[in-house]
Amino acid sequence: MIYLGLLGCGTVARGVCELLRKNGRAIANKLGEEVIIKKVLARTESKAVALGFTPEQITGDIMDIVTDPEIDIVLELIGGTEDAYRYIMLAFENGKHVVSANKDLLAERFVELNRAAKRCGLALCYEASVAAGVPLIGPIRETLSANEIASVMGILNGTTNFILTNMTQQGMEYAQALKMAQELGFAEADPTSDVMGYDAARKVAILASLAFGAEVKFADVYCEGISNIDGEDILIAGELGYVIKLIGYAGCAGGRPIAFVRPTFVKRSHPLASVNNSFNAIYIEADGADKVMLYGRGAGALPTGSSVLGDVVEICRRRGAPSPDWNGEAAVSGTAPIGEHLGRFFIRLRVEDRPNVFAGVASALGERGVSIASVVQKPVSSGLADIFAITHPSKEAAIASACDSLEKKSYVRSLKRMLCLE
Amino acid sequence: MIYLGLLGCGTVARGVCELLRKNGRAIANKLGEEVIIKKVLARTESKAVALGFTPEQITGDIMDIVTDPEIDIVLELIGGTEDAYRYIMLAFENGKHVVSANKDLLAERFVELNRAAKRCGLALCYEASVAAGVPLIGPIRETLSANEIASVMGILNGTTNFILTNMTQQGMEYAQALKMAQELGFAEADPTSDVMGYDAARKVAILASLAFGAEVKFADVYCEGISNIDGEDILIAGELGYVIKLIGYAGCAGGRPIAFVRPTFVKRSHPLASVNNSFNAIYIEADGADKVMLYGRGAGALPTGSSVLGDVVEICRRRGAPSPDWNGEAAVSGTAPIGEHLGRFFIRLRVEDRPNVFAGVASALGERGVSIASVVQKPVSSGLADIFAITHPSKEAAIASACDSLEKKSYVRSLKRMLCLE
Repeated sequence: MIYLGLLGCGTVARGVCELLRKNGRAIANKLGEEVIIKKVLARTESKAVALGFTPEQITGDIMDIVTDPEIDIVLELIGGTEDAYRYIMLAFENGKHVVSANKDLLAERFVELNRAAKRCGLALCYEASVAAGVPLIGPIRETLSANEIASVMGILNGTTNFILTNMTQQGMEYAQALKMAQELGFAEADPTSDVMGYDAARKVAILASLAFGAEVKFADVYCEGISNIDGEDILIAGELGYVIKLIGYAGCAGGRPIAFVRPTFVKRSHPLASVNNSFNAIYIEADGADKVMLYGRGAGALPTGSSVLGDVVEICRRRGAPSPDWNGEAAVSGTAPIGEHLGRFFIRLRVEDRPNVFAGVASALGERGVSIASVVQKPVSSGLADIFAITHPSKEAAIASACDSLEKKSYVRSLKRMLCLE
Repeated sequence: MIYLGLLGCGTVARGVCELLRKNGRAIANKLGEEVIIKKVLARTESKAVALGFTPEQITGDIMDIVTDPEIDIVLELIGGTEDAYRYIMLAFENGKHVVSANKDLLAERFVELNRAAKRCGLALCYEASVAAGVPLIGPIRETLSANEIASVMGILNGTTNFILTNMTQQGMEYAQALKMAQELGFAEADPTSDVMGYDAARKVAILASLAFGAEVKFADVYCEGISNIDGEDILIAGELGYVIKLIGYAGCAGGRPIAFVRPTFVKRSHPLASVNNSFNAIYIEADGADKVMLYGRGAGALPTGSSVLGDVVEICRRRGAPSPDWNGEAAVSGTAPIGEHLGRFFIRLRVEDRPNVFAGVASALGERGVSIASVVQKPVSSGLADIFAITHPSKEAAIASACDSLEKKSYVRSLKRMLCLE
């Protein structure tokens, strides 16, 4: 018998309870023993009762759970960073393995929590913390563990992907697509964390830490949201053979991790370009496996519950074995400046349509060593023209400097730049 | 120190050696101990020498490896079904964990090998046996282990996917695309096993056994190849919003597994439709995680080596823990008849263009309870017409019976049917 202590009675806890009720017998058959939630920590008893727990199982005191000698694994599903941290550390101190779905906490204290697990000889599993039901922490930790990973990138936020998909496929403007997402329950009343990229940035911090054995926190991740993407950006991207996606990226520049979230031109033939609506996907480049993509549901009670219980099964099967983790040593802390990122960029300029303007744009880029791969100039109206350029791979710092200089030119009316993914 | 015994010196062994040489230090850092290939079984000493082994490490006798008390894990990379089976059983009898990349053997003796591992309290890992570098055995065994899986399907053969991609994107005919695949090394001189679907069927047998805890062997998998797909099929599919892919499928019908490989109309919006060239992908539908797709390289020395070494890391981390396997009990053996499969079908008919022919086709389907979702009739030439119909979900047996009856009608010149995936 494997006894679990459940912390929290929210959406994820509901998914765990529902799936365990439905598939508990099959899980027991695989493991050779039954998995049972023995106690639940609940602030509101009625919520725990609604999940099917008896009053004897419900407690408001974390110590009832972490000191219960029968409980093997604590499921931290309360979210937030204060209590959750304290409870996880108490669980470790009392010899319990921990499964957490808490991306906010892991994006702040990944290294610290992994070290604590290692010190105590216990497992910390967190498959559900990034992209809910998509198997990716497991594959990175296990299947791909013999690889040197070059980059991990992906579509890590379902709300923004739903909005961008509707802007692309239905021709909606941003505000309209956001409203629809809110009406359908894909976006919250206050969508800030999603549309500004903060939610995706937390997931990037966890992925960067795991993939590069580094200490990367939320605040280390460069972040641009999607709120200033307009229908014209989408149209131009389409004409050039791209779709716009909010991409979270963790890679390396000069031995240090580089991590960002930003709207990106993704070439239509790239596997991430076909990831639509609220789906999430992670694309990994590594020296052994080459290219791998993992795709699925990035949110929802059951997909998240599925990953939480997958972690429980993994811990049970490893019983007695040390933590399956990343080794707890961070080679480096923080990230390289975003200017170090080497990539192709899309630049959209609205300029006055007069002689030498095109030459001026070309030389502003050329002077900083930025070479243009393709460029289109189109007249718009009343003496104005649009220039769309895609560069060869260049450091972001060089592009930024060229763009700053162009923005100061009298003939430049507006300028936008975006990363390109081929 | 973890000592490995390597069986074989072919492509996969080369990938393992190369990756271990490159990333051995990083792997040791993750595990806290070094992983070393101590001995290698080679029929030809020169091939082992070319991989960097010293004469002292090379043996022609399997007993030198399985009786070496220092060796923990045997890597079976020789392929074939006779010697490989004997060597794996010898490894288990001598207390060694086994990693195998051998799909031919696993597609024949999956249950037997898993039972042997369980009986001996050892691990049998085989991530590399299906779709090389794509993490999918791990995710099915671990991350998704709390799910009831409804179906596992995918593009499991790179050669045929390369051929079909070129027929679709470049307008090539089958023979031309096959020739190009052979010239580029994507297809063998004798392409039978790939183009007839046998290679994919072996992978389906393994996936069906794993996902449904059943005993499904290669011979149980219904199999149709791609050699009679022509440019017109591809064009029609495109006009109707589909692409043709060779799909391997494992699902359930009436409590028994159903398993097949066949060319399939895949709706362009389906994630599998964007899997092109030699890439492989597996699409899983499950009650918790919902929809998951795993995408990557289905062949090659390094991708296969990556999965073999991933299994090694997994076994090392579980040291002392029992086999991470499927529990070794097969609930059922064999598969349900293909006629039990419920699906949508595409039917392509060339008929004489005269009164009542359309009605005859419609009633042949209607009499067997097959309902038409969409239909197009087009004149071709000299009194002939093409009818393309897509049905609502129907049992394959009903479709097959309707098609048999239509083929006997005097006005039907030719008939093809294919499965549809929406």
